Parts: sequence; structure tokens; C-alpha cells
Amino acid sequence: MNFELNEDQTAFAATARQFADQELAPFAAKWDREHYFPIEAIQKAGELGFCGLYTPEDEGGLGLSRLDSSIIFEQLSMGCTTTTAMLTIHNMATWMIATWGTAQVKEMWIPTLVTGETIASYCLTEPGSGSDAASMRTSAKKTESGYVLNGAKVFISGAGATQVLVVMARTGEAGAGGVSAFVVAADAKGVEYGKAEEKMGWNAQPTRMITFVNVEVTASALLGNEGEGFKFAMQGLDGGRVNIATCSIGTAQQALNTAQAYMQERTQFGKPLASFQALQFKLADMATELVAARQMVRLAASKLDNNHPDKSTYCAMAKRFATDVGFDVCNQALQIHGGYGYIKEYPLERHVRDVRVHQILEGTNEIMRVIIGRRLISSNIEVL
Amino acid sequence: MNFELNEDQTAFAATARQFADQELAPFAAKWDREHYFPIEAIQKAGELGFCGLYTPEDEGGLGLSRLDSSIIFEQLSMGCTTTTAMLTIHNMATWMIATWGTAQVKEMWIPTLVTGETIASYCLTEPGSGSDAASMRTSAKKTESGYVLNGAKVFISGAGATQVLVVMARTGEAGAGGVSAFVVAADAKGVEYGKAEEKMGWNAQPTRMITFVNVEVTASALLGNEGEGFKFAMQGLDGGRVNIATCSIGTAQQALNTAQAYMQERTQFGKPLASFQALQFKLADMATELVAARQMVRLAASKLDNNHPDKSTYCAMAKRFATDVGFDVCNQALQIHGGYGYIKEYPLERHVRDVRVHQILEGTNEIMRVIIGRRLISSNIEVL
Amino acid sequence: MNFELNEDQTAFAATARQFADQELAPFAAKWDREHYFPIEAIQKAGELGFCGLYTPEDEGGLGLSRLDSSIIFEQLSMGCTTTTAMLTIHNMATWMIATWGTAQVKEMWIPTLVTGETIASYCLTEPGSGSDAASMRTSAKKTESGYVLNGAKVFISGAGATQVLVVMARTGEAGAGGVSAFVVAADAKGVEYGKAEEKMGWNAQPTRMITFVNVEVTASALLGNEGEGFKFAMQGLDGGRVNIATCSIGTAQQALNTAQAYMQERTQFGKPLASFQALQFKLADMATELVAARQMVRLAASKLDNNHPDKSTYCAMAKRFATDVGFDVCNQALQIHGGYGYIKEYPLERHVRDVRVHQILEGTNEIMRVIIGRRLISSNIEVL
Amino acid sequence: MNFELNEDQTAFAATARQFADQELAPFAAKWDREHYFPIEAIQKAGELGFCGLYTPEDEGGLGLSRLDSSIIFEQLSMGCTTTTAMLTIHNMATWMIATWGTAQVKEMWIPTLVTGETIASYCLTEPGSGSDAASMRTSAKKTESGYVLNGAKVFISGAGATQVLVVMARTGEAGAGGVSAFVVAADAKGVEYGKAEEKMGWNAQPTRMITFVNVEVTASALLGNEGEGFKFAMQGLDGGRVNIATCSIGTAQQALNTAQAYMQERTQFGKPLASFQALQFKLADMATELVAARQMVRLAASKLDNNHPDKSTYCAMAKRFATDVGFDVCNQALQIHGGYGYIKEYPLERHVRDVRVHQILEGTNEIMRVIIGRRLISSNIEVL
Repeated sequence: MNFELNEDQTAFAATARQFADQELAPFAAKWDREHYFPIEAIQKAGELGFCGLYTPEDEGGLGLSRLDSSIIFEQLSMGCTTTTAMLTIHNMATWMIATWGTAQVKEMWIPTLVTGETIASYCLTEPGSGSDAASMRTSAKKTESGYVLNGAKVFISGAGATQVLVVMARTGEAGAGGVSAFVVAADAKGVEYGKAEEKMGWNAQPTRMITFVNVEVTASALLGNEGEGFKFAMQGLDGGRVNIATCSIGTAQQALNTAQAYMQERTQFGKPLASFQALQFKLADMATELVAARQMVRLAASKLDNNHPDKSTYCAMAKRFATDVGFDVCNQALQIHGGYGYIKEYPLERHVRDVRVHQILEGTNEIMRVIIGRRLISSNIEVL
Repeated sequence: MNFELNEDQTAFAATARQFADQELAPFAAKWDREHYFPIEAIQKAGELGFCGLYTPEDEGGLGLSRLDSSIIFEQLSMGCTTTTAMLTIHNMATWMIATWGTAQVKEMWIPTLVTGETIASYCLTEPGSGSDAASMRTSAKKTESGYVLNGAKVFISGAGATQVLVVMARTGEAGAGGVSAFVVAADAKGVEYGKAEEKMGWNAQPTRMITFVNVEVTASALLGNEGEGFKFAMQGLDGGRVNIATCSIGTAQQALNTAQAYMQERTQFGKPLASFQALQFKLADMATELVAARQMVRLAASKLDNNHPDKSTYCAMAKRFATDVGFDVCNQALQIHGGYGYIKEYPLERHVRDVRVHQILEGTNEIMRVIIGRRLISSNIEVL
Repeated sequence: MNFELNEDQTAFAATARQFADQELAPFAAKWDREHYFPIEAIQKAGELGFCGLYTPEDEGGLGLSRLDSSIIFEQLSMGCTTTTAMLTIHNMATWMIATWGTAQVKEMWIPTLVTGETIASYCLTEPGSGSDAASMRTSAKKTESGYVLNGAKVFISGAGATQVLVVMARTGEAGAGGVSAFVVAADAKGVEYGKAEEKMGWNAQPTRMITFVNVEVTASALLGNEGEGFKFAMQGLDGGRVNIATCSIGTAQQALNTAQAYMQERTQFGKPLASFQALQFKLADMATELVAARQMVRLAASKLDNNHPDKSTYCAMAKRFATDVGFDVCNQALQIHGGYGYIKEYPLERHVRDVRVHQILEGTNEIMRVIIGRRLISSNIEVL
Repeated sequence: MNFELNEDQTAFAATARQFADQELAPFAAKWDREHYFPIEAIQKAGELGFCGLYTPEDEGGLGLSRLDSSIIFEQLSMGCTTTTAMLTIHNMATWMIATWGTAQVKEMWIPTLVTGETIASYCLTEPGSGSDAASMRTSAKKTESGYVLNGAKVFISGAGATQVLVVMARTGEAGAGGVSAFVVAADAKGVEYGKAEEKMGWNAQPTRMITFVNVEVTASALLGNEGEGFKFAMQGLDGGRVNIATCSIGTAQQALNTAQAYMQERTQFGKPLASFQALQFKLADMATELVAARQMVRLAASKLDNNHPDKSTYCAMAKRFATDVGFDVCNQALQIHGGYGYIKEYPLERHVRDVRVHQILEGTNEIMRVIIGRRLISSNIEVL
């Protein structure tokens, strides 16, 4: 057992942090205000390999572990939560294509996906099925030359600004076994984009509904085999949960640092805030919870890397715990700033708005409890 | 002891609710999005007497108690949190002028303040003194004909759109005893307005810094006597805390109602959300906390009406408890809505953003704990 | 709306407090240690009318409201939680007999029950049905002269030391409609008592299983009509929940007072504990929660007195909230005492052990959430 | 970074668990009830090396790391919290003597301490200084042949039943720098024992005050040099905090396992408790918090092993977090058991009583927040 970063991880983290400080943090407030999707920042991230972190090396990725990737994403999210979250989605979609894609589809997309020249969106959720992925209705009917897709997907991050879509659609019977995964060009005929959703946060990326109206894809667009889509989606979600939890702890660390600095500068009643015991206690609890959350995220990433039989349970625990802690820490940091925490001149209210959705995305935290609870009552829990 | 509304209170509440449903709720999202200050809505509220609820009847107000006023404000805030909060500030300033103003200043302002034809802002907080009101620096130097004001006030609700300012300024020595209160025309020479703050919420009212550069006022502008300003401010705060706590519980009730309706409509895994036990429990806890918060607010308002020696402690308790509960209930209601809670098509994320500032305003909830804690350690607490 | 005690309530409360200070508090630790059931204290309470607080006056009770009774029980529980809890059970059983008993059974028991010369136990819970009262199995088969009871009841407070048992038993079909209530002499033939349960707390009263083996009762032992037992039990529970919640807040107030005094006496690092801000904040939150809990209890008692259609919901809310707050306040008071809180020389650890069961009794707090949740999803919640 | 146990750790853990199952768990309830100090069990633990886990091998210990030791103690505490806690205190005292003792004192005590033939108590806390160790008053005056000790220590675990005392006493000026550490035979002339404290829990070990009345020790009894005692005590506390936190998570795991099994067996409303979603969610949160707490403990132990500059901060975080979680998990497990959780036939109420003191011992959790908070405001927190 060993809790220290190795040399490579330390080096990667330093690079990521430098990138966050220089290319993300200075612009994050502006991107939020202007609802601007920073494609160029993502491409610069791609130059450092951050667009294919755990894509295999022979596909052009860095071939890192999920744990390594989490360490990097955490640093990046200290600069901009939303952009880093988009990067994690792109990494997941890229990894899916690189892992289960046909030679044809990999050749077409992977070289530019790993550099960030093209960006991928992930299309799972539907209007009637938030957390209930198995009930999806989008259909992919087999044709002579491939498939034709019909249906609608909602809350698609990056939609309208990305080039590639990984789409879950039903090729078979009802339930999880009838779902398949496809790679679809974002500008294919029949792919229609809704208006950009107005959101509480995550404003540095567009979120849209996508409607598929008789969208034709070739047979090579299928990832793996027919009926494997739900399995891929679930595997994607495990990693997605670790990633989104990672974005919460990076943002929370940033908020905590900001609050700590503020407490030293700001005086009230003739003393710096840092000298008030009740605020010291608050800061102590924020830091303690955050350290615990980071451990949970790294533990889950490690279980994922080791393909531990309970990896999904650990990922659900990490997602539940770290996104709750992340929100609370950001919210407390806002409170420490008083009125200044509430205005956009300071980053706190943005942090709160951005991490709030992490408690909902990739399966709500209630769904996480369903997953964990079911595991616990199914058999002896002590193996955990 | 009696916990039921009397006939008058029931009638007032019904009128307020109708007003909220017709004149506030349909527009609140738009006002938030467009950062629009709905002066006409405030004036319509004035027609019903809501601009001078506890201003004495012989000054043109309704002469209601703080408890009556809280019952009314609660209903109004179900329609629009921000507009109602502005109304409570206006009511407080109007009451201050009506209570301690000179005949001259009352004659000039009260008739239009109680109808909402003019609106008042309250100027207490300074850049360097958030919760530490006694350290204020804005000065009012005595001149032959009156006073000349210099200094700066921050986070002034309504600033730039209101006609009257109640301003705390230092006429004497350092500390609380040297503070006096003045009524200043918002367009007086030397009153300069900063840019509208960009805030997390409360967007239906402008918040600005106000700078006073050699602003001349007549001697009649003084409320009460020199040196009484801090006392007035503290009395104002007691009521202000009950009012802001009221806005939290009204908003939270609205959020709870919305969540309850959503749980009956929305299905997941083939069943309405309302049938999931864990969500029922969440709803049960939200409702329980909210009922407790409402009781705390009404208890405090009643103590204020009775001029109970511990009224300030009760007001601090109500403010701390109800604004914390209000935030949590709104935030849980957002969570129940999943992704839909995060987008502006639904009101939940606005409720969360709006009530968030109530934990900060009128003395942060940390200051509330200071007030309560000091009272508790000063003497036997059982009288509470 | 009025939150102040009236003159009568103030007088009753003072009497109860004096009784608590003189007859309960000095002995409570000893009774706990020695597992002693203080019959003589209960009888002294009876002399003051505390054994028939809400029993009608024409039956020899004081005929007080539930709200009045709660005010009295709160003061009593400041002296001894367990004895007061037993008193509340006795009051409930006495009220049931006085309300629904036949002339014969009233004549036999009420005169001594209201004076405390005899004490009553309440027999509802069974080994297999903790919170699920409708599934009870104890049977009462009709005979020529009355009924014969068979079955077992568990967790019966006072069992083995009381003279009268109110017993729920099945006279009809499965489900709630087949349950009837009976008055049984505690020493009737066939009533067998198990060993005294060893409990975490509530040691000043014996808790035993009672087995009924062919216990014969006359027809006059039936309360009301056959099949009304479950209805009586539910009505009893509403009041029982208010009562047990009351015992939590009285105990918590006592713990808070003790902690407040300790903070002023005990020094650490050269200063009284009372001067540490973080402890002041803790005390402030304890007091705030406790005031809210008291309001909830009184609100529920008032709804019960008014026979409000949602009285059961309010009682469930009060029970859930006040017993949770009661435990937390006592537990925090223990923590403030450090090592001294953990030893029996101080009362804190006893308070924690005693109030812990209130979160379980009279329907667990999870069952309270079931009750509240069902009400909330059944129809518009705003009437609350 | 690696989160898995290595082979040795797995083997040690299995041995410890077997010992816990066979030698501790079957007797823990009886020891608690009878306030019995199981010396023979400690000696059996000694046979397996558990009395000198991190005592160096060349002193007869196992020479394990703190992390290894935590893994072992966790398993042991699943069998009996109190006995394991006593073992951790004994291990700490033994390690102190082995590390800083003179040849003479080591020769006299270490051989039997590492086997458990003799047991050691640790004497730091005084009546007037709970958390404020630097203000201690017990004096050690230099004499020709050694020192003479006078003063009083309170809350000494094992006192009266152990053979060796490690005693902190003042040899020099006021403050931390004047404190030295001594090894004193428990039966030395002038060592007087108070009555066994009656405690909420931890009943399987005696806790007494010890008074030192002109107790003479030789010069060889001094650990290290004069004035180093406070430094040793602080080092001891770091490890002691990890150990006590470990006992909380082991106990909580045991409580969680018990609750999980109970949920599968116990039916209510015709279904096993395990099928109720709200209870599944509760179980999920208990397990998640517990996994996080375990990570915190292991992280801190690892920082201690690596002599990390922030090791004390990590130990304080682990102690605060894990003892709070430990209590909450045990308390929730009690609640899941309903009435059965409250009686001594089941182990839950004992678990709650036993772990409660962990939030107080070795520096209260408030003191942990002081330690963490001071560290956080002293310099950039990100190194954490």
C-alpha cells in the first residue's frame, strides 16, 4: 500500500497544473459569462496529450491508467471545471472508439480525436430516461449497408460544437441487451440540434438536445457487436463517474485555496478572518472532507485499473462522496467570502454553480446509492 | 398559545398569494434572465398596501405587526424571491423614516413610499465592514445648514433605481455610538453609483456601490438624534432578519411544491418518482425542516412584536435556521428534478441561486451564531 | 397566533419544574445505576395530578389539553427522562381507559390510575411486528363470558411492576380492522412476564416481554367496540409521539443548561471554555435546534387538541424532528464535557443513553418518514 | 500509488481476525457487563506478537509499520473495541520505552511487555488539563539518585491492573519545554489508585485516577533527556490517534456487517428490511463513509511511517473523520435494529457506547480541528 504519487505522476500533475494556470484559469470567468466553448484551449490540451490520456499508445494516446488520468484531470479542473469536464467526456468517447471501434472508424477519427483537432460528444440520456438507461428508445434499424438511426438524446455536452458522436441506440429487443453503440459524424444528414440549454453553470460548453431523423451510418460505425452497447455504456459510466468526481475535488481544492487566502487578507472586527476559531474549524472540516474525497476517487480509479470485481461499487461510492463533498466545500468557501462570494468578481459562485451538476450527471447521487445499496444487500459486504 | 392564522391573516395571505401568482410568478424567470427591476410590480404591490405593511396607519401604512407582515411576505416570495426581498427592504426603510423621521422628511417621502411610487434603499454595509457595522467610515460632518456626507457603501439593493436612501454615517467618535442615520435623495448631488454587480442570483434588482462625495443634506434629514443610528440599524436588522428568513421559507415552500408535483408526474424505471421510498423520505425531511423553519420565523416575529428582551436572539436564531433550511430545501428540490433542475426552463436553479444570499445578507449566519452564542454564555439560557 | 404560555401554563410548568428538581433530579442517576423503578415518585406525581393530565375532569383527571400536558412533561423530563417517559405512557393508557372503557372497567381502575396508586402499561408491539402494528398475532377469542387472550408482547415499559395492562389483540380478520383493545389486570391468571431486558438506558423502568396464556377477561374489558383497537392505538400513538418528543426536548434543555454552566466553569489553555468561539457556535446551534424542536412539539400538540385533519402528520414531524434534535443536543453536550461527559459522575452520558430510544419508540423515525412522505405525495402539500 | 494489501498484510489481517473471532468476540459482551479486564486475552494476543507490533525487532517486537499495525488493530477491534484500544495503548507505551528508554529500563520491562506478561498504562492527562497537555502540573524533582514524582493523572486506562506506567511530569519551567517522561513501576511506593470510574462504555478496562505521592524513581527511569517529554507525548499522540481511529473503523465495520445481516433476516410489512429503499440508501451511505474513513486512517498511518512533515495534520484529520464516522455508523446500525438495537442482547448499543469515547480521547475532535485549522492558515494548504 502506498499513497504517494510516483515521479511520472508528479511530473504529469505539474504540467497539468501549469496548463491550468496559464490556459484555463485566466479565462474561465469570461467563458462562463459569455457561454463560450474554448475549442482552442481543448486543442492546446491535446498538444500535451490530454485528449487521449487513457487511449492506448498504439492508437496515439498516452496509454495512462485511470488513476494517472484522475491526477491530471484534478489539476486541470483547478483551472476550469467545465472545460475539464468536457475534456473528460471527450477522453471517454475517444477511448470507447479506440477500444471497440472498427479499423475503418478508428482510422477516420482517432488521429484527430487524440490531438483535439476533433472533439467527441457522448449521447446516452433521453428525454424520458434520465437515470434509467436501459429503457432507451432511440432506434438503429439494420439496413443493407448499415443502420438508420431515429430518436432523441438530451443534455448532450458539446453538442453542436463537436465533430463526433458516440450514440447508444436500440438494435434489438427491449431492455439492456438490445442496445448497441455507434459512431456518428456530428454533421451527418438528419442530425438536428436543439437550442443551447440555459443552465445554472457549465456555461463554457454548449448542452443541446440532438434529434436523429433517419440518420444513415455504415456497418463499420458499430462499436463491438450488436447488443454490447449497454455494457460499453456501463463501463464508460464507471470511468465517467471517477472523472466527474475528480473535477469536483479539483474545483473544491481551488475554492479551498481561495478561501484560505481570503481569510488571511480580509479583516473584520480588527482581525484577519483567519484568526476566528469558528472559521478555522470550518476550514479544517473542508480540508478533511476534501482529503477523504480525493482518497475515494483515487481508490476507485485504482480499482478500475485493476478490474476489481467491485469496481462499479467503488466508482459509485467515489462519485457520490466526492461530488457531495465538492459541492459542500465550494459552497462553504463562498460563505467564507460573505457578500463577495456571491458576486461574479470572485470565482466562488461559479465554482458552486459548476460543481452542482456533478451530483446529477453520470447517474444522480441517488442512483449511486441504489448501486451501492444493492451490492451491499446481495452478499457479504466485508470484501469491500 | 395558538398556532393558527386568524381571519385577517388568512385573508391577507390569500391576497398576497393571488398577487404572487398573477403578478410575480409568471415573470420571475424573465426578470432573472434579463436582470430587470420590476418597478411596476412593486407599485402594484403598493396599491395593495404591501409597501408600508408595518408603517403606522396614521402615516399611511397598514400598521400591521411583524408577524402579519411575515405571513404576507412569505406568500409573496412564493412568486418572486428577489422582488419580495426588495419589498422587505423598502418596507424596512419606509418604517424607519416613518418612525424616526422629522415631519419635513416624512412629508416629503412617506406618502409616495407607502404607495410604492418611490422606492427606498438601505445603505449600511461598507467595503471594509461586512458584518462589522460599528467600524463604518462614511462620515457626516455637521455644517451650518445640515450635514455633508462622504464615503462609500456597497451591496446596496435597488441602488440606481430607487429614489430614497437611508444612510448610516459617522457623526461622532469611533464605534457604535458615533453613528447617525440620514435620509438622502437618491439623485442628490454627489451621490455616485457604481456599475451593477454581477451576482449569482437576486438578478431582479440592481446591486451597486454608492459613493457619497460631499453630499449635502439638511438638518431635517437626520433620523432621530445624532448617535442613534447604530441603534436604529440594529432594530432594523432584527426585522430585516425575520424578513429575509421569511423570503427563504416562502421560496422553499414553492420549491417543495414543485418537487412534489414533479415526483408525481415524472416516471423512472416504469414508476412515478413519488413511489420511490428514498425520495419520499427526502420529501418528508424537507417538509419537516420547512415547517420547523416557519415556526422559528413566526416565533421571532412575535417576539419582535412583543418587544421581548431576547428578541434579537430569537431573530438571529430564525435567520440562521430558516435561511439554512431554505437553501437546503431548494437545493434538494433541484436534485429531485435531476438534469431538469439544473436548467433554466425549470425554476429550481433560480430558487437555489436566489436564496443562497440570504445566508449572507443582514449579517452572515456566522454572525448570527456569534449573537446567539454570546447571549447563551452571558446568563442562564433557560429563559429562552 | 400567540407563542407565549398563558398564566395557567406558566403555573403548571413551575410546579412541574419544582417537582422535577426536588423529587426526580436528585435521584435519577441512582435509579439508572440501580435499575430502580421509582413507584413512590410516580405516586407523588399523582398527588399533583400528573398521572391523569389529560384524563377528563369528570373521571378524576385534570382535563388538560395535550399542549398543556406537553409543557408539564417537558419540565418533568428535565429531572428524569425515564420516569417522565413512564408517566407519559401511564397517562396515555389512563386516558384510553377513561375515554373508551366500560363503566365497570373505569370504576375499577380510573380512581387509582389518576392518583398513581396503580400504574398502567401499554401492550402493542410484538416480537415479529415492531413498526408493523397491523400484522399483530396476539388473539382474543370470544367466549361466553368474555374473551380469552393468547400471544406475546415485547418491549413493554413498566411490565412486572404495573397493575393494569392495555392490550391490543386480534378479535377478527387479518389486518388493522380485526384488532381490539382490552384492559387486563397485570396479575391475571396466565399473564407471564419475561426477564427484565438489559437496555442501553431507560433503566429507571423495567422492560419485559409479556406472554398471555389463555388469559380470561370479561366482556367489560373491551375498550369501545370490537375492531376499534387499531384506531385507538393510532390515536394513542399520535399523543404518544408528542409525549416522547417532549421528553427529548426537556432532557436536551437540561443537557444544554449543564453544558452552558460547564463552559463557564471549566478552563483550558488559561481561558474558560465559554470564551472559545467554536464552542460558542456549537452552543448556539444546539439552542437554535432545540427552540425549533420545542415549537414543533407544541405545534403538533396544538393540532392534536384541535383535531386537525393533518394532526398525525404533524405528530410524526414533531416526533422525528424533536427526538433527533434531542439526541444530537445531548450528544453535543456530552462532547463539550470531554472525558467528564463520558463518566457517570456527570449526567451527560445518561441523557444520551436515555433519549436514544426515543428515536425508536412509538414508531421509529423511519416510520415517521413513511407517514410524512405518504401524506406529502397523496395531495397538495401546501395545506401543511 | 497502490491501495491493496500486500501478502504479509493480508496474512497478518487474517490471523488478527481469527483471533478476534475466537478470543475476543465471544466474550466482549460479558466483559462489558461484568466490567472485566481480560488480562489473559491480552497475553494470548502477546503470543501472536500483538503486544509489540511496532516495537523494533531487536527489542523483541514485530517491527511492523504503523500502517501494518493499523490493519491488524482494525481486525482485532471487530472482536472487542475496548480490549483492542487497551492493546493499542500498551503498544504505544511499549514502543516509547523501547525507543527512548535506558538500557536498564528496557532490560527490566521490554521482554515481558512485548509478550503481554506485563501491561503498560500511559499517564498524560491531568484533572485540570484535558486537551491542554502543556499546562501539566505533575512534578518530577531531581534528587541525588533520581527523581521524586508528585501529582495526579486522570482517565488512565488500565490503571490498577497494569504493571508499568509511562508518566509525563514537569522537570523544568512552565510550558511544553519543561516536561519529561518517566517509566514508573505501577506498584512503586506512593502510587495510589482512585476508584474505577463508572463509564458509558470501555468497560472491559479499568479507568482510574492515579496520584503520585513522593514516588521515587532512579535516574534510569527517564526516557530520553529532560525536557523531551512533551515531544515524545506528541509523537505518541500521532500514533495514538491513528490507533484509536482504527478501533472506530473496525467496530463500525462490525456494526455494518451486523446491520446488513439483520436487514436480510428481519421482515416488516411482509418484506425483509433489505428490500426497503430508504434502508438500502442508509446502508450505502454508512458503507461509503466507512470506506472513506478507512482510507483516511491508512493515509495517516502511511504519512507517519514516512515521517511526512505534515504527518500530525494527517493524523488529526484521520482521527477526527474516522471517529466521527465510526460513531455515526454504529449509531445508524443500532437504529436499523429498532428496539433490538437498544438492548444488550444485541451488540449494537455496546458498539455505540464504546466508540463514543474515541471522539474525546487522545485530544478531542475539537482539538483535532484546532490542529488542522492552524496548519491550514499558516501556509499554502495545497501541499496537503
